Order: sequence, then C-alpha cells, then structure tokens
Amino acid sequence: MTDARKNDLSKVKALIFDVFGTVVNWRDSIIAEVAGAAADHGMPEGDWGRFADEWRAWYGKSTRELSRDEGPWRLVDEIHREKLDVLLEEYGLADAMTEEAKQHLNRAWHRLDGWPDSPSGLRRLKSKYIIATASNGNLALLVNMAKHADLPWDAVMSPDVYGAYKPSPKVYQNASKLLGLKTDQVMMVAAHTGDLEASAREGLATAFVHRPMEHGPEKPVEMPDTSAFDITATDFNDLADQLGCD
Amino acid sequence: MTDARKNDLSKVKALIFDVFGTVVNWRDSIIAEVAGAAADHGMPEGDWGRFADEWRAWYGKSTRELSRDEGPWRLVDEIHREKLDVLLEEYGLADAMTEEAKQHLNRAWHRLDGWPDSPSGLRRLKSKYIIATASNGNLALLVNMAKHADLPWDAVMSPDVYGAYKPSPKVYQNASKLLGLKTDQVMMVAAHTGDLEASAREGLATAFVHRPMEHGPEKPVEMPDTSAFDITATDFNDLADQLGCD
Repeated sequence: MTDARKNDLSKVKALIFDVFGTVVNWRDSIIAEVAGAAADHGMPEGDWGRFADEWRAWYGKSTRELSRDEGPWRLVDEIHREKLDVLLEEYGLADAMTEEAKQHLNRAWHRLDGWPDSPSGLRRLKSKYIIATASNGNLALLVNMAKHADLPWDAVMSPDVYGAYKPSPKVYQNASKLLGLKTDQVMMVAAHTGDLEASAREGLATAFVHRPMEHGPEKPVEMPDTSAFDITATDFNDLADQLGCD
Repeated sequence: MTDARKNDLSKVKALIFDVFGTVVNWRDSIIAEVAGAAADHGMPEGDWGRFADEWRAWYGKSTRELSRDEGPWRLVDEIHREKLDVLLEEYGLADAMTEEAKQHLNRAWHRLDGWPDSPSGLRRLKSKYIIATASNGNLALLVNMAKHADLPWDAVMSPDVYGAYKPSPKVYQNASKLLGLKTDQVMMVAAHTGDLEASAREGLATAFVHRPMEHGPEKPVEMPDTSAFDITATDFNDLADQLGCD
C-alpha cells in the first residue's frame, strides 16, 4: 500500500538534521552551565530553568525574524550574547563576572550534550546516508559542539553557509544544492513540526523524531499529529531501524 | 631559539587542508577510472596519464581565473565536465559513451583515493585540532570523497561556501571567520607552496607536506625551499608527530 502524500524514500541519499532539541539536549546542558557559572560568582541558587528558557526564547524570536529577513543579519553566537547580557544584569551577575567568564558562558551553546542515542544513532545512519546539519546555529558553534558531543557529521551547514535562517525555503533548497542533490533525495529530520512542514513544501522527505524532554520534565512535549510526515521515530536508533541501517 | 618569521603554533586551534594532491592521490585514481571507462567502451589502451594531466590542467587554469574573478562562476563539477567532453571527443570515446556513463566518469573526482597516511594521520590530527577542508573542490565532491576515502573532516568548506577560489585572500579569511577563529589560530596544510604563501599573507600558520608522487613516478616533485613555512613534513603522521598529537 502506498500513501500518495508520502515520498519515495528509496531516492533519499542524505539526511539533514535540526540540531537544538533534535540532536542535543540544550536545556539541561544550559541549566548546568549557568548554575556552575552562578555558583562560581557567589550565587549558589536560582531559577536556572527559567534563565535557560528565556535565553532560548530570545534565540527563537531573533531567528524567526531573520528567517523573514527582518532585523540586522547576525549569527547565533551574537544573538545569544545579546540576551546573556540582559539576563546577567537581571539576575545580578553582570558585575561579578569578567568579560572572559561571560564569553565562556556564552559558548555554553558550543558544549551542549547529545541525547543518549545521538552518537550511536548518527553513526548507524551515516553508514548508509550522508548526514549533515541544517541548524540555525553558526558553523563554529556546530563544529565545536560536534567535537564535544561526538556527532560524526559528514557536513556542517549553517546560516553562515546558507545565507538564510530556517524556516526560510532558501535553507532547504541550498542544503540540497550544496550536497549536489535534488530536494526529494534529501530527508529533513527534526523534533519540530514547523521545520518539517517547511522542508516538505520544498519537496524534501521528512522524519519526525519525538524528544519529549526538550522543554524539561515539567513540560513534556506531547506527541503531535505526524501523519503528514514520511517517518515518525522515537529516537535515532529507531530511525536507523526504520531506514534499514545496520 | 625562536625564528622571527615563524608563527606561535601554540595559538593554532584548526588545521585547514588543501585536498587534491595533499590529501588524495588524484592522478592514479583518475588514470584508473579513465582506463576502466575506456576499456568498457572498446578502447583497452591509451595514454591515460596524459588524459589525467590534461583534465587536471583545465581545472588549474579555470580555478586560477576564478580566483581572480575572471570568467563565469561555476563549480568544479562543471569545470571538470567542460574538459571531459573535449577529451572524450579527442580520444574518440564521446560517441560510445552514454550521458549516464559520462556523468559517472565526471564524478571520478568524487572517488579519489587518499594517500596511504591520510586516514590515520587525519585522525591523529583531529584528536587535538579542528580539521577542515580548504579546497577548490565543491562541497558535494568533497563530502562524497570523504566517505569514499575515509577522511574524518570536522567541517567541509569549499568555494560554494566561501564564495571564492584559492588563492584568493577571501578563502583564507572566510575559513578562519567561519570557524570563529583569528587567522593566526588557523594553519594551512598543503603540498603546494603557492597555497601556503597566499595563506601566510593573510596571517595563517603554514605546514608544507611533501607529496613527491603527485604528478606520477616519471615526474617526481622535488622538495622546494620550505624555509618560510612553520612546518615541513613528509606526511600527515609526521605532521601529527611534529604537532605533538597522540
């Protein structure tokens, strides 16, 4: 039985991945880094979950604006720093921290940990497909993160390569073009339905990977309606199983 | 004893590599692919060394023009195809080969073999440094080659990422910027002095790796004067030794 809405997955040569939330557990990593930096600067307690969520929300707002060509072009390292300075002021940490300590904390986003299945699952997927990033993180951030979290990308692609932010159609088109492939030879993998819907509009195949803990244990992500996507998986090893990888 | 001309190598965080000739043995790989394709199409004998050299010379001429912003912008896959069509005509193979066979042969440049030390040497260098390409090959070519030849790049950078061809200063500047580094935190690794001289002018550290067989056993490459470069190495394992990699 074939479903007319679905793509012919035998054509797929490359998988491109959303990274924050899909490959790495940004929230727990950022909470740990912020808590550590705050404790080092005389503040052992604080609502670091809220700090992490507010930091992340600014990234979301800023990259959505940039995806619509609104606001001055800047990379995620700069976007993170804008909000970090505001948050450190608000939490009373700005004066205690040196510029060097602030730069180090801003680069916490280069040191995010993968979900437990990310290194092993990506290796299995890499044995059959080209695996590459299609993230809104900048190239340096993604390269450093890959070394930290053992993510064996074949190619790291980013807004400083694409010249655009997701969910701009340019990202999905340029990713396919850079890899020398047609859009139906590329599958977008993400834990976020908006990213998959935008890539499907450009002709990419789609795989939804459920990451219920992205926003923390108190706000588990419900399984959305994924019937429009080619694959729904519980993690990268399940995705590798469904795609017939060893 | 410090040498005033030399860079402080303790600053170096990333190594960027010339690929054709430095990492992969393009000539022997191309000779084997052309000989195979010719035999499959009724021509068991021919001067395939000359074919390979002429194919490569067109790449050299075309990319040098593009590095000076001369001629229409195109990727190396297209540059290779331009000359392949001329050579197949000249060698009497054009009519015998299907379009599919021609496309496959053109992609022989995606299937080049590494020098014997390339996979092991690059892995050792990767344990201490970011390792990335700074090649005139296009991204798809370099990604496919990395899978074929087991080259464990942290990042694949190419003219379709930089928007420029070596030895344009833009390549060395953009490579450093994309990696989030200053130019003196990046070392260019190449078997070609011109590439190293151009990168040194932009402030990069330099490592010359001698590849005497790049142009075949009948035209061994003499060791040039490398006294202006930071390191001179016989292969990537020697480079890893000199840089203190495990």
